[in-house]
Amino acid sequence: MAVLVQFEFPFEGPFGAELVQAARELAASIAQEPGLKWKIWIENEPARQSGGTYLFEDRASAEAYVKKHSARLSQFGVTHPRVSFFDVNEELTRITRGPVD
Amino acid sequence: MAVLVQFEFPFEGPFGAELVQAARELAASIAQEPGLKWKIWIENEPARQSGGTYLFEDRASAEAYVKKHSARLSQFGVTHPRVSFFDVNEELTRITRGPVD
Repeated sequence: MAVLVQFEFPFEGPFGAELVQAARELAASIAQEPGLKWKIWIENEPARQSGGTYLFEDRASAEAYVKKHSARLSQFGVTHPRVSFFDVNEELTRITRGPVD
Repeated sequence: MAVLVQFEFPFEGPFGAELVQAARELAASIAQEPGLKWKIWIENEPARQSGGTYLFEDRASAEAYVKKHSARLSQFGVTHPRVSFFDVNEELTRITRGPVD
C-alpha cells in the first residue's frame, strides 16, 4: 500500500531558482531512490520553511529513505526535521483525483 | 503558481473502508472545489491521525478551501487542525516525477 511521507523543516535558503541550481543533482539522485513514486519539492520562503511531500510504494522503502535523507539533511544543518508517515485511503483519493496510481 | 496544503489532525476514526462509506459524498463534493487540482486522503490509524494533502492552482483558492474545510472539521470535533501552506518548486519537482502539472 502506498505511503505518503511529509518532511518539513526550518530553512534559511536558498529558495526557488537558486535552490534549483543548488539541488538539481540531488533531485536526479532522489529520483532513483528505490520505491519512490514521486517527490514534490515544497518551500515557504517568507516563513523560512522547506520540505518535501513523497509517495512511496511501501512502508519499508519510505523508512529507508527517511533514514538516509535525515542523515543528509543534518549535514546541511537541519537536525530535527518534522517527518510524518501516512497510509493513503486510495478509494477516497481516487474520487478527488489524487495522483497515487 | 501551484500551492500545496497539508492538513493533519488527531482523529478517532473511522479509518480505511469505514471512512470510505462515511466520506464518499464529501469526497465527491471536495472534488468540485474551485481551484482544486487534487486531494490525497491520508490516515495513520495506529497514531490516531488523519488529514489531507492538497494541490491548488493558486493561493486564493487554497485559502478559501482551508477556511471552509476548517469550519467543517470543527463540526466533527476537530478544532485545531495543523495546516501548512507551501509553494511548489516546479523545476525540482519535475525531476522527481512530482504530479503538479
